[in-house]
Amino acid sequence: MKVVITGGTGFVGARLARRIIDKGTLAGPDGTQTPVDEVVLFDVMAPDPLPMQLDGQVTLVTGDISDKATIDGLIDCDDISVFHLASVVSGGGEKDFDLAIRVNLTGGMNIFEALRARASTPRLVFASSIAVFGGDHMPDVVGDHGKQTPQTTYGMTKACCELLINDYTRKGFLDGRSARLPTVIVRPGVPNAAASSFASGVFREPLKGEPCALPVKLETVMPVLGYRNIVEGILALHELPSEKLGDDRAVSLPSMDVTVADMVDALKRVAHNRKLGEITVEPDPFIEAIVRSWPVATDDARALALGLPKDNSLDDIVHHYIEDYDHG
Amino acid sequence: MKVVITGGTGFVGARLARRIIDKGTLAGPDGTQTPVDEVVLFDVMAPDPLPMQLDGQVTLVTGDISDKATIDGLIDCDDISVFHLASVVSGGGEKDFDLAIRVNLTGGMNIFEALRARASTPRLVFASSIAVFGGDHMPDVVGDHGKQTPQTTYGMTKACCELLINDYTRKGFLDGRSARLPTVIVRPGVPNAAASSFASGVFREPLKGEPCALPVKLETVMPVLGYRNIVEGILALHELPSEKLGDDRAVSLPSMDVTVADMVDALKRVAHNRKLGEITVEPDPFIEAIVRSWPVATDDARALALGLPKDNSLDDIVHHYIEDYDHG
Repeated sequence: MKVVITGGTGFVGARLARRIIDKGTLAGPDGTQTPVDEVVLFDVMAPDPLPMQLDGQVTLVTGDISDKATIDGLIDCDDISVFHLASVVSGGGEKDFDLAIRVNLTGGMNIFEALRARASTPRLVFASSIAVFGGDHMPDVVGDHGKQTPQTTYGMTKACCELLINDYTRKGFLDGRSARLPTVIVRPGVPNAAASSFASGVFREPLKGEPCALPVKLETVMPVLGYRNIVEGILALHELPSEKLGDDRAVSLPSMDVTVADMVDALKRVAHNRKLGEITVEPDPFIEAIVRSWPVATDDARALALGLPKDNSLDDIVHHYIEDYDHG
Repeated sequence: MKVVITGGTGFVGARLARRIIDKGTLAGPDGTQTPVDEVVLFDVMAPDPLPMQLDGQVTLVTGDISDKATIDGLIDCDDISVFHLASVVSGGGEKDFDLAIRVNLTGGMNIFEALRARASTPRLVFASSIAVFGGDHMPDVVGDHGKQTPQTTYGMTKACCELLINDYTRKGFLDGRSARLPTVIVRPGVPNAAASSFASGVFREPLKGEPCALPVKLETVMPVLGYRNIVEGILALHELPSEKLGDDRAVSLPSMDVTVADMVDALKRVAHNRKLGEITVEPDPFIEAIVRSWPVATDDARALALGLPKDNSLDDIVHHYIEDYDHG
């Protein structure tokens, strides 16, 4: 079977591609384990070389996800699964509304329509976000059945895609599953336009010996999950028998609700005697407003019951990052 | 100011137009009462003559709501309000998915973008539906803060439009308000493609002396509101100061949760000695499945606190229908 990963050259996409290639098989449209013949990474542009030693092991396609013909050409066989990760992120969407609509909503609809056009009922895993929740009436603890009143354009487009995927699945056009991602830590490399970018920077920069200026206060609470379990959760959601998800195909991945101070403490514990770059707090109202709109406590009972994995501690996540990326 | 009503030649649209013309003023984009200079009815086609004695009192524009240029031409001044009622209905959307997406979602987005392009922040009232609710985890009593897990394409497109309107309003692109309509009774004329059409037919046909075959059982519960208060509720929502709605702009209009048997009883009470057409029950699985997915109990406390009106009884609604339409 063919596996398409949109946003495939990104951090999560590339790790997912590596994991799928190493695994070798996935549940096909009929639910049976099927050899993966080709992994296609679709992205707006691609780094050279590809991350995760993927050169020569994947097909690379670059293009505009909002172009229907491009996506129809990408999803061109029946024996296929799609992991749809491509997205304008939270901070980016607040700054460019039209781009967020075009990439996240029109792009998503192109993916759904291309899958619908296949003769099979292909599986689709969509990377949604806990940013679908928010607003004045958000409950103190947010579970899968909380109302979605997002306070970012990013979250709004994710919520619309969840609704579309539920309906496309109900109609039998595809077999969709939406994985709501909490903040993913620790992203390697450089900061991105996500409002949550600092939650990776707070580990990454000090470990490089560089300073980190936090745009939010230390007591800010964020639901987070380590990138290894993000990838495992997305994969596990793909492999679940369809009927386990019922009529609401969106699941918030398990997460730990931690403060930024907890992150700093974990970093210091794990780094032990290493000299770290200085961490300061320099509030940025733009970032603070976005982060403040997100849930601070999550109920992940449904995700755990579905067998989706969770980190044991922040310390584990920092250890993973040092093992995988911090070779300084 | 100019007032545009999409779906304006329909039952609710035409009554709303009549009401606005008779009222003479509406809250303008700046919130102050402003004379209404022109009422434009936009629809896919128009009856001749227009209902509600509207000929000569409105501007009629027919066209395709999914055509962006058409809608940009319709919403062509800053001193404007839009009542967006045009929609493919529930049963119609289940039978033609693409049409529901094109009219309800693309059409809605054309309206929102055209309003955003204005130099003002125009008010928009969108006719949503309680069909945005549904699914296995729908609470027993559904209020404004219940999760939206619609089980029809119709409900899904309405939920997406609510999300878009919330975000367009948050961004200051327009001042949106979504009125979630329960089943509107008693619609005159002939049955339509809405799965709830029988809830009007059960009154209308017997009063004409014609038989009515109900597609659902007598114990089926439906939230309903009389058409007079539907129009008054839509109008009241338009006139509310923006800040009263907070960050969730969608309000379920007040409704009475009644059984079909209650409807039959009210009809018989009000009709008294009149000879009525026979009412039979002939279950239709297609209609039953759609109706079964909708809420059966609604919490309208927020709507009532906002001053939106409600009928005192089913009997009142039947009296209104006889007064307005039943001149047999």
